[in-house]
Amino acid sequence: MAPIINGRVLFNAMPEGFPEPGKATTYDVSQTIDLGADSCSSIDPYMRNHMKPASPMGGYILPFVLGELLSGHGVSMVICLEHEKVKVGEHLYGLLTHKHYMLKQDLKQLHILENPSNLPWSTFLGVLGMAGQTAYFGWREYSHAKKNEVIYVTTGAVSVGLVIQLAKINGLKVIASAGSEEKLGFMKEIGAEVVFNYKTTKVSNILVKEGPIDLFWDNVGGGAFEAAIEAASLNCHFIECSKISGYNGETQAQPKNLYLIKEKSISISGFVITQLLEKYKEEFYRILYPLVASGQIKHREAIYEGLEQVSDAILGVQKGTNKGKATVCVADA
Amino acid sequence: MAPIINGRVLFNAMPEGFPEPGKATTYDVSQTIDLGADSCSSIDPYMRNHMKPASPMGGYILPFVLGELLSGHGVSMVICLEHEKVKVGEHLYGLLTHKHYMLKQDLKQLHILENPSNLPWSTFLGVLGMAGQTAYFGWREYSHAKKNEVIYVTTGAVSVGLVIQLAKINGLKVIASAGSEEKLGFMKEIGAEVVFNYKTTKVSNILVKEGPIDLFWDNVGGGAFEAAIEAASLNCHFIECSKISGYNGETQAQPKNLYLIKEKSISISGFVITQLLEKYKEEFYRILYPLVASGQIKHREAIYEGLEQVSDAILGVQKGTNKGKATVCVADA
Repeated sequence: MAPIINGRVLFNAMPEGFPEPGKATTYDVSQTIDLGADSCSSIDPYMRNHMKPASPMGGYILPFVLGELLSGHGVSMVICLEHEKVKVGEHLYGLLTHKHYMLKQDLKQLHILENPSNLPWSTFLGVLGMAGQTAYFGWREYSHAKKNEVIYVTTGAVSVGLVIQLAKINGLKVIASAGSEEKLGFMKEIGAEVVFNYKTTKVSNILVKEGPIDLFWDNVGGGAFEAAIEAASLNCHFIECSKISGYNGETQAQPKNLYLIKEKSISISGFVITQLLEKYKEEFYRILYPLVASGQIKHREAIYEGLEQVSDAILGVQKGTNKGKATVCVADA
Repeated sequence: MAPIINGRVLFNAMPEGFPEPGKATTYDVSQTIDLGADSCSSIDPYMRNHMKPASPMGGYILPFVLGELLSGHGVSMVICLEHEKVKVGEHLYGLLTHKHYMLKQDLKQLHILENPSNLPWSTFLGVLGMAGQTAYFGWREYSHAKKNEVIYVTTGAVSVGLVIQLAKINGLKVIASAGSEEKLGFMKEIGAEVVFNYKTTKVSNILVKEGPIDLFWDNVGGGAFEAAIEAASLNCHFIECSKISGYNGETQAQPKNLYLIKEKSISISGFVITQLLEKYKEEFYRILYPLVASGQIKHREAIYEGLEQVSDAILGVQKGTNKGKATVCVADA
């Protein structure tokens, strides 16, 4: 194989608000490499968190290094590696950098994917990737859900699609919100009883009518958080996922009723999926892969072709304009 | 016994801000009764919560009825009752109304107090009452504390005094705040390593220096809540107690960093002690009574004499001007 351009995506500047393509992140073609294969990179809301200075208290989110590679969850095919644990042609899942080819010695943090039904590899970055794991692990560890309870789920992204479907499997009544009619349609399709557009409908009006709620799956915070506290039943559980509406410095409603957490005996769980990985990983693939392969669990993807699209995909995720889980796929022509 | 005035405290008007004595609550002497004994009434922050309209969502806090009796935790001596379960001279603890004498048939919710060391009955409304139970039950159920961890505790009231002492017994480093030098002195005396006045010192400055924190015992919310999120270590536990700083409509800082709950895997537990009563009640009296009687557990009380003082005691509790757990005691002359 002749040397080919090894396209990469670099972190170029700390964004003030939304991460502007070409400014916050740039696509770089200055390097070449000799190998070839297919790969997929997951584009996730949390990436915005790596585009700001580290917290003065230490913090667990390390900023991307300016001028260096972006990183995130990805799937890469093994092409020419001598390693006792993997074979050429196998696909590995884990935290990877955004470049076409990588030379890796240490495979400890990478997971060899099994794919007997030949699902697209992007699936392993969506409903079967970190997004799905967030929903599945959080559900299993923190939901304590009982049949006929009422859950309110914010945003219609893939992770949430799975939360709705897990809630329906467990016999809950589902109230779900999103920001586009197209997402509301998907949420109806996967079983949500009550769907509404948070841009045109006041959350608290819906929850007063359809609640009280026993479980709150929170992807946005702000006004929805306040409305959920107001509509919470005694011993309500809140599961805190990525709070995309606060990432880009947008004005966000700050809850004025936190004192009700005590009054209503509300429990709130934030979680980092890496801490739950060992506990649920095997179960996750064993239970979910066949449900996804058979179509019983539905999901939607927004596939971008080529690393040149990473910056646009990041912005789409932050603005919520994608119609499914955003993934950037690359394959040799 | 000749008929005597049966003084009572009535809920007179919904307060706009602080509950003004004589306006929000009034002392009424229009009734008489024939009996005589001693009693104590606990004055607690949560009473302010009963002085506002019920939540439109149902809610678990029923407002006091205008023109009717105040109620709260109290200790009353049995004086002339034929009942198979209690004897004359025994003291009962539980939710009682604020009047000198009560005729009660149903004693199910009342607890017969044992007091071999002849502690003042007011003690059973402070460190051995609801305030102490809040600290003890919350600590046992939610703290998950380990030796050498760091806890931040807000406010120096009695309930908090117990939290600090439980934390020290369990080998934690204690950071504690209060609003007066006198309270800071008490907190030092019971073992807190770092004490500061939240009125003159910025919470986050202290926590940046002395944290990160593994446990946050929150009695106030607002700015302290935001600072605690900022200073939280991974998997930090927050225990949400009464949020007195929000009760009276004061301007309260609203946390802008709730998205960190997810990032730092923070768990937050609000709780209602009635739900934990059966689980810990026996242990609470068995463990804590001898520690209090021997002076190993310290506490401070602010005793008011006579039901005429209830309105002032309520205001003192809301403004934080009491030097200990506020109790109103009444005894026949």
